[in-house]
Order: sequence, then structure tokens, then C-alpha cells
Amino acid sequence: MLNVLAVDIGGTNYRVGLFDHEGRRLMVVEEPTHRAGGRDWMLHQIQRHAVSLREKSDFPVKACGISFGGPVDYPRQTVTSLHTPGWKDFEMARWAEQTLGLATRVDNDANAGAWGEFRFGAGRGSRSIFYITISTGIGGGWILDGKPFRGRDGLAGELGHIPVSDSGVICSCGGRGCLETFCSATAIALRARGLAQRKPEAMARVLELSHGDPQNVTAAQVFQAASEGETGAAFIVREAARWLARGLMMVVRLMDPDRIVLGGGVAKAGLALLEPVRQAMEEMGSPTIQASTEVVLAELGDYSPLYGAAGLALDLAAQTV
Amino acid sequence: MLNVLAVDIGGTNYRVGLFDHEGRRLMVVEEPTHRAGGRDWMLHQIQRHAVSLREKSDFPVKACGISFGGPVDYPRQTVTSLHTPGWKDFEMARWAEQTLGLATRVDNDANAGAWGEFRFGAGRGSRSIFYITISTGIGGGWILDGKPFRGRDGLAGELGHIPVSDSGVICSCGGRGCLETFCSATAIALRARGLAQRKPEAMARVLELSHGDPQNVTAAQVFQAASEGETGAAFIVREAARWLARGLMMVVRLMDPDRIVLGGGVAKAGLALLEPVRQAMEEMGSPTIQASTEVVLAELGDYSPLYGAAGLALDLAAQTV
Repeated sequence: MLNVLAVDIGGTNYRVGLFDHEGRRLMVVEEPTHRAGGRDWMLHQIQRHAVSLREKSDFPVKACGISFGGPVDYPRQTVTSLHTPGWKDFEMARWAEQTLGLATRVDNDANAGAWGEFRFGAGRGSRSIFYITISTGIGGGWILDGKPFRGRDGLAGELGHIPVSDSGVICSCGGRGCLETFCSATAIALRARGLAQRKPEAMARVLELSHGDPQNVTAAQVFQAASEGETGAAFIVREAARWLARGLMMVVRLMDPDRIVLGGGVAKAGLALLEPVRQAMEEMGSPTIQASTEVVLAELGDYSPLYGAAGLALDLAAQTV
Repeated sequence: MLNVLAVDIGGTNYRVGLFDHEGRRLMVVEEPTHRAGGRDWMLHQIQRHAVSLREKSDFPVKACGISFGGPVDYPRQTVTSLHTPGWKDFEMARWAEQTLGLATRVDNDANAGAWGEFRFGAGRGSRSIFYITISTGIGGGWILDGKPFRGRDGLAGELGHIPVSDSGVICSCGGRGCLETFCSATAIALRARGLAQRKPEAMARVLELSHGDPQNVTAAQVFQAASEGETGAAFIVREAARWLARGLMMVVRLMDPDRIVLGGGVAKAGLALLEPVRQAMEEMGSPTIQASTEVVLAELGDYSPLYGAAGLALDLAAQTV
């Protein structure tokens, strides 16, 4: 019997967990990410919690998996984040191996989330899935025929950065009209803020939830108000769902996977997201091209990447045992 | 030493060829498809030419590969064409095995084209490619990590039927605004005919090539006139290239393959297609997401699917020898 360590480094929260040999979660520490603390602060927290969890483990801890919320050069096992100070070209796996004394594998959070859902969540029993994480931005990861598929440059799954409109706004990536500028949490909140200012009467419930300040409106509030029947909020949800459906139709037509798993913060809206997305995909579908890809909600919620990190660690442990 | 038979059944032409053990083309018979003759006529031609080519072969013919220009249920090795009379649920491989006495494998033309280019054409030396065939419609096939990827329902690669506009026309598939309604040969010809009628002065060279009749304008004539500098034709080419680029950006962002190989009749336009497509992709790209997927022209021209069929036959021969 053995256990493994799993780490999920996100921009908002980070998590360090202990998992058993079948990928069951035994213990998890979850805390807010102190952004100003940078890399050194984060590494210190990970080390501290890892030591503590190992002490509590009933079985030897054999490996470590890390999900990183930013670009990872998987073959080199290196974080390549350009946006976050201190992380550029950081040899993450080597650091963990030296500091924790554990064989370690690191992947980005979208791929880790895909691996987590595939092995332990909504992807179980399928051969090929696309996992999409919808939160501040939109990311995605592939499992094809049971294995992660990362592409030539490790950039496969970047659904959020498909340019879908010449007349869209400039995206955080520098491109124009990327899908995520239409249906990420950020995009939904922005549109809701605009509508709440222009037509407060159609967004009364949203404004109530945001304590009257249009600038505080969040995507979660929009989904809640929409599910309570507010017309303005429902309009924004339908519009976002339609853009998302357009993106998912690309996934279905290009790869015809068994399942598409919706994860990330926005997917916490549950059926309030899933139903309009399915409806829009149905409408856009073709009567003669009947792909049977299922669209489902993630089962592991915020923990999809952490479970994926545990899966990576278990893969490593299986190789070395 | 051994040879194999390859068959390509297309709506316009069909081909039966003899290939050697390294996939070199030894002999090919190519004739127009007599559509009214239906399935029986086609099978008779294939049988006739297969017998004739085998008699001329210097080495034993060990297997047969067939590319079919329509939907194929690969696991069942059955043609499932709904549109062409007589082919529905036809057990193509079994027919060839019984009639020709050869182990046979059948696939649709897009997958066969992908396999042909991957093994013997513009995809050599890469691990993962997307092959797109642009002619009457738009089809595509995947080779991922060296193997064909067909998807859950055998529908992976259907780039042509991604809905890209709510305000588009109804597609042959019954959907609305599919990509192929914007940049297939059919779409290019239709747009050119409209422009030639509305603004004949901008399409003088196109009209000359079509002997003065706007209704006879073809996509090939549009590319030729565009390359000679005609403004109307160049406008239509740029517009089609831009839509195609939009589709290829989906391929790059979702799968980040090594190469995208442009095949089919429209790709015969060569650089007149490739250059505006590359330029539009460059424009749409992101300064921070630098996928290195190459976009190249098919090397086997009309014969991509036939070579793919030969590849399928060689795979079978390798298994059975």
C-alpha cells in the first residue's frame, strides 16, 4: 500500500492533498494564494504542507503530482509562465524532487483537470474526453484513447483562444475576438455590468445580489438571478451559453469524443449552464451528422486538477514500484 | 516481395491501382464514375480492373485497401452512405474479400487521404497531422501520434460542418452556416457567379474563362483569374481563404498538430490558396500563443486517398504475412 501527494497551484487558491493508491482523497489543505508573495512564498507553503501531510500518512508516500495554473513545458517538466513573476522557466518537478525527495510530475491545470475527471470523475468509463475549464478564462485538455494528448507545442486544448469574431475585443492573449472574450466568467460579468448600468430594471435581482453596485456583479450572481427568472440575467446566460455551444460544436465536429466535461467556476452553475448549452448545441446540430458526444458536468468541482495531479503521481508510482 | 491493390471510389472519378511493398505506385486505372450506374456498375468496374492489375503484377497481391467517398462505419467495415442509392449498409470489405479473395480494409476518403499523406506525402516525418480535403464539400481526417483517430462515431475531422454563422445558408447536411458553405469549391463558385452577374466589370477575366456564362464559373477559374490580378476574383479568394483560415485556427488551437495538409480540388490552386490562408492565420494569431503547426499543400494531389488505401492494404499485409 502507498499514498501520493497532489498539489494544485492556482491564481486564487492552492491545495496540497494526500491521496491513496486508488486515487481517493484522504486529506486536503486549501488556502488562498498570496499573489504578492510570488514563487518563493508558494514553494514554502507547498513544502510546509507536504511535510505535514507525509507525517500524517499511514503508508509511505511514493510520488508527487503538481497541477500548475499556467503554461507548462511538459517534456521539460518546467513552468513557462510569462505572466506571473518568478515562475518563468522554473524547473518545477526538479524542485519538488530535490525538496521533497519524491518522484514528481507537473502538468498545467487544464490537462491535469482532464486527467482527474477522466480517471476519477465524469470521464470514467470513456475512451476520449475533452475537459473544458470555464473560469476567469477558458482552458481545455484532451484525453484521447485513454492518454493525455498535448500537441506539438503543448498547446492542444486552447479552445478559449479560438478567434470567433473579427469584431470582438482584444483578448488577454493579445488576439482579437477569442472565444473566452464571449463566455468566460470575466466576459459574463462584464456584459452583466454593462446591462445593469444601461437597464437596471432588467437586472434588479443581480443588482440586489451585488449590493447595488454594478461594478461588483459576478458571473455567479448572473446565473443565480437567471435561475430565479430575471430577464436580463437570463438573456446574458443564453448569449454566453450560445457562444460556448459554438465552441463545443467545434470540439464535437473535429474530434467526436465520447464526452465533453464542463469544469471550472462557471460550471458550478450546474444545470443553469448545462441546459442552455445543450439546447443551443441541439439547435446548431445537423439532422444528418449525428455525433453522440455527451456534454456533462465535472464531478470533482474545484478539485478536478488536484485529482489529476494525484493521477500523475500514481502513474509515476506505478512505474517506479 | 508483395504488391497490394488500392481502390478509390469517388463521386466524379474512381481509381484502381497496384502499389508495391513500399507504397510506390506501379499502375493506376482512372475513369469517370458513371453515377447512374449505381453500386452494381461500380463494383463491376472495380472487379474487372482488379483482376486485370493482378494479372500484370510481378509479385503476389496480398491485400486490398478501399477509399470510399462517403461515410464508412470503420469498425463494421461497412459503407453507410445515405445519399447515394444502393450503398447504404453495404459490407464493402466483405464484398472485396469474397469477390477478389483479398484481405480488405475500407475507410472514408478523408481518413484515407490523411493516411496517404501521412505515410507517403506531405505528412512524412511528423507525428500528428490534420488532412483537409477541399472540393465540392470540405472533409478532414486525423492522424494523431502516428495512428488514425476516428472518434466515437467515426465522425472526427468534420471541419466542413462546424456551424460558423447563424446567418449563413442551409448546408447540404441540413445544418445552417456550416464552414463549407463559405469556402468549399461550391461556395467559391456560387459567390463568383453572383459577383459576375452583379459586377461583370470586376470579373471580366473569370467570365472570359467561363466563355461568358456566369453560371459556368468554377472555383478553378476564380483562382486563375485572381492569380492574374483580377480584383473581383481576388476579393472572392481572400474571403474564402479567410473563412478557411478561421477553420484551421480551430484545428491549431484545439489540437496543435505538427502539420495541416491542404488537399482536394481547391488545394490544386497551390500558392494562390496557401498564401492568403497563411496570411489570414497570421493576422488572426495571438502574440502570446505561438503554436508552430505548419500549413502545407498535399503532395499526392488527387491520389492522396488512393495512396491511403494502399497504406491500409500494406498494414493488413504486414499483419497477415
